Amino acid sequence: MPESYEVLIVGGGFGGLYCARQFCHLPAEAGRRLRVTLVDKRNFHLFQPLLYQVATGALSPANIAAPLRSILSRCRKVRTLLGEVTELRLREFNGHRGSVLLADGEELAWDALVLSPGVTHQYFGHPEWEALAPGLKTVEDATAMRHRILYAFEAAEREQDPARVRQWLNFVIVGAGPTGVELAGAIAEIAHDTLRHDFRHINPEDARIILIEGQDRVLPTYPAPLSAKAAQTLRRLGVELQCSSMVTAVEEGQVRAAQGDQEVLIPTHNVLWAAGVQASPLGQTLKAASGCTLDRAGRVLVEPDCSVPGFPSVYVIGDLANYSHQIFKGQTEAKPLPGVAQVAMQMGKYVAGRIVATAAGGESPDAQMPFRYLHLGSMATIGRGAAICDMGPVRLWGLLGWLVWLFIHLLYIVQFENRLLVLLQWAWNYLTRGRSARLITGEAEAQEL
Amino acid sequence: MPESYEVLIVGGGFGGLYCARQFCHLPAEAGRRLRVTLVDKRNFHLFQPLLYQVATGALSPANIAAPLRSILSRCRKVRTLLGEVTELRLREFNGHRGSVLLADGEELAWDALVLSPGVTHQYFGHPEWEALAPGLKTVEDATAMRHRILYAFEAAEREQDPARVRQWLNFVIVGAGPTGVELAGAIAEIAHDTLRHDFRHINPEDARIILIEGQDRVLPTYPAPLSAKAAQTLRRLGVELQCSSMVTAVEEGQVRAAQGDQEVLIPTHNVLWAAGVQASPLGQTLKAASGCTLDRAGRVLVEPDCSVPGFPSVYVIGDLANYSHQIFKGQTEAKPLPGVAQVAMQMGKYVAGRIVATAAGGESPDAQMPFRYLHLGSMATIGRGAAICDMGPVRLWGLLGWLVWLFIHLLYIVQFENRLLVLLQWAWNYLTRGRSARLITGEAEAQEL
Repeated sequence: MPESYEVLIVGGGFGGLYCARQFCHLPAEAGRRLRVTLVDKRNFHLFQPLLYQVATGALSPANIAAPLRSILSRCRKVRTLLGEVTELRLREFNGHRGSVLLADGEELAWDALVLSPGVTHQYFGHPEWEALAPGLKTVEDATAMRHRILYAFEAAEREQDPARVRQWLNFVIVGAGPTGVELAGAIAEIAHDTLRHDFRHINPEDARIILIEGQDRVLPTYPAPLSAKAAQTLRRLGVELQCSSMVTAVEEGQVRAAQGDQEVLIPTHNVLWAAGVQASPLGQTLKAASGCTLDRAGRVLVEPDCSVPGFPSVYVIGDLANYSHQIFKGQTEAKPLPGVAQVAMQMGKYVAGRIVATAAGGESPDAQMPFRYLHLGSMATIGRGAAICDMGPVRLWGLLGWLVWLFIHLLYIVQFENRLLVLLQWAWNYLTRGRSARLITGEAEAQEL
Repeated sequence: MPESYEVLIVGGGFGGLYCARQFCHLPAEAGRRLRVTLVDKRNFHLFQPLLYQVATGALSPANIAAPLRSILSRCRKVRTLLGEVTELRLREFNGHRGSVLLADGEELAWDALVLSPGVTHQYFGHPEWEALAPGLKTVEDATAMRHRILYAFEAAEREQDPARVRQWLNFVIVGAGPTGVELAGAIAEIAHDTLRHDFRHINPEDARIILIEGQDRVLPTYPAPLSAKAAQTLRRLGVELQCSSMVTAVEEGQVRAAQGDQEVLIPTHNVLWAAGVQASPLGQTLKAASGCTLDRAGRVLVEPDCSVPGFPSVYVIGDLANYSHQIFKGQTEAKPLPGVAQVAMQMGKYVAGRIVATAAGGESPDAQMPFRYLHLGSMATIGRGAAICDMGPVRLWGLLGWLVWLFIHLLYIVQFENRLLVLLQWAWNYLTRGRSARLITGEAEAQEL
């Protein structure tokens, strides 16, 4: 048995980061043998719940991202590496239990492996839609989406033909989960408030914002009364809701959607994707190495302690994990935990505790407890001064919901400086209805001007 | 003669924007016939003097950029268009004096044309160096350079071979004008302060920052005593100065420089270009259309009123103009005005005045005055609490210089909100020695991890 006990965490999102931070303040005895490495292909932790605010020009990427090194700077036990994991080896390596291979060929040993790589979008079997309907998972996605949204108004201003102006001023958002609702509300505010005085030829208020949802209401995972409140607020903001409606084709300049027997054709250049997610390809890699089972979305079915069946020291947490061992009040069977930040954070902390206990040799009673998700609530913002919060018995909406949403989000933004800057920017945006980060940057796909 | 008098301004930098703003508050009588259009291929005005702070992770792009539409939102007389000018037509069009063609084929008429397209870098006849030695003119340049700088430390942390670690930790900045000096100072601070605790394998303080300058001192356009102060501060920050030294080759993994007879070989992956500038290709387009003369850097030799010889209603302002009609105290002959923001701003305002007078029909005495540049001073910052200011008889350096630098720069940042955010970010960075915008984003060229 080698002197050190190597913990390797893959991914610096909510799951990986909160797991890594648990190792910072261990008592000397418990932590002596432990060596922790956090590997991510990006150098920063991204606060994804606010990514839509970058996409809509309210915040800058740096406001919601913090360098992983800087977050873990004082935590001498954890080392951070920039690198992409390409292969998982579950057999012994250099006296340790396994290893991973990075893209540049380096091999890193581990005694405990924590996989927390997150998700990407999926297009219901139509990968060709991606080029026309960008999703929102990375900083680059957000600046590309910002480019799309702002460019559409510029292009409309230049266009003479009314039919083509329409195409530029119609915005179709696919999927009315929290991201879709937040995007629709923000774009409505851009069109009706932020840009109101900025154009000479078009009137930005002519923009149509259409939110398409397959199920029969917006925010289908929320209680029905909150969905109704959200729908009401969206309508007030000028968003058109098309529920029970499925997108059947995304084409150059138009979208087709089926509503029952009826086909709707919407002329538009602006399709924003907020519908499906697909687990990281690392799930496939793990399946090949361990023989584990993946669900339809590509997530790994994990044991009650978040480990991979047959590999007690390999853990999968966050959005890549399908954890179906917990039956909530009012449910008759266990459903997979949702892909939200709270689940990932709690899994990260739990798994860190298990690893510490295992490394210490004894199986403490704590370490035998299965993971239990404590649902603190879920919330989605709709627009200026309007959000809904579902916190079990307590349901909030409107301004009060928004204030709670604001407080909670500020609380979880990782660095104090970012917290301050975001608060200031929000206050400013709220007072002026402005959005200063309205930059069209980067190379555009299919840019015509 | 058509009813309206069309003014077309190409470029929304300091020259074009300050020109456009002059038309916002005209007396009704003077402005009645005037219609002003500002065309830029970007949708924002960029405060270029602070671009190096984006490149070094101290600020976000949106902090130093403001949407042109939003700046000119209340100015009903000016319309803003996103578009790229590809052709200049100096003959009559639709009853107006001329027109320009945009990339998408649209033709815009003008009675007065103001060209203010700015500059790009040049590599002394070695365009192949560009891929290895990025320059700093656009927002994308800045995020790419930030990527380079931060990635170098990450790559060094991953590298085992000491010689290759060296290559990643050597930073070569070519050109010791204001941009080069500012970059060198900022990178020294990143290595010695910001990242000090962030790495486990390398010590960021081992980074060598080498500033190469062809002339015999840094900031060669400044008075010699200020150059000496700057050199002293740079050395204190740990920057190595190689003056009277010419870069002879930029190759993969190394740079060659000639110092007299001696050739110096510096192993490095990080070459940042802050040396030559080249006028916008629009200069060539104008030459083809008007037969005007270009200088070696591609700038247009303009008349004392900034117009193009033979075309009294076509003006060239800002960095594209070679204005050599003004002899300063202590000089015996007229030298071209420097390519700084102040010159562009003053030219923009002057030209707007001329256009208003011409459109009014009468040649007012004011309008016959040639352009006169009022030199308010020049300044460059070197690091935390250190800058030099040359304001004619008054020369400042150190903390006092820095405070003046800070004040002036905040003053000229276009929007109040940005001013506030930049001030807050600076205060934070100053107190914590931090740089929160340390994101490695976008696709990397030749990324290995």
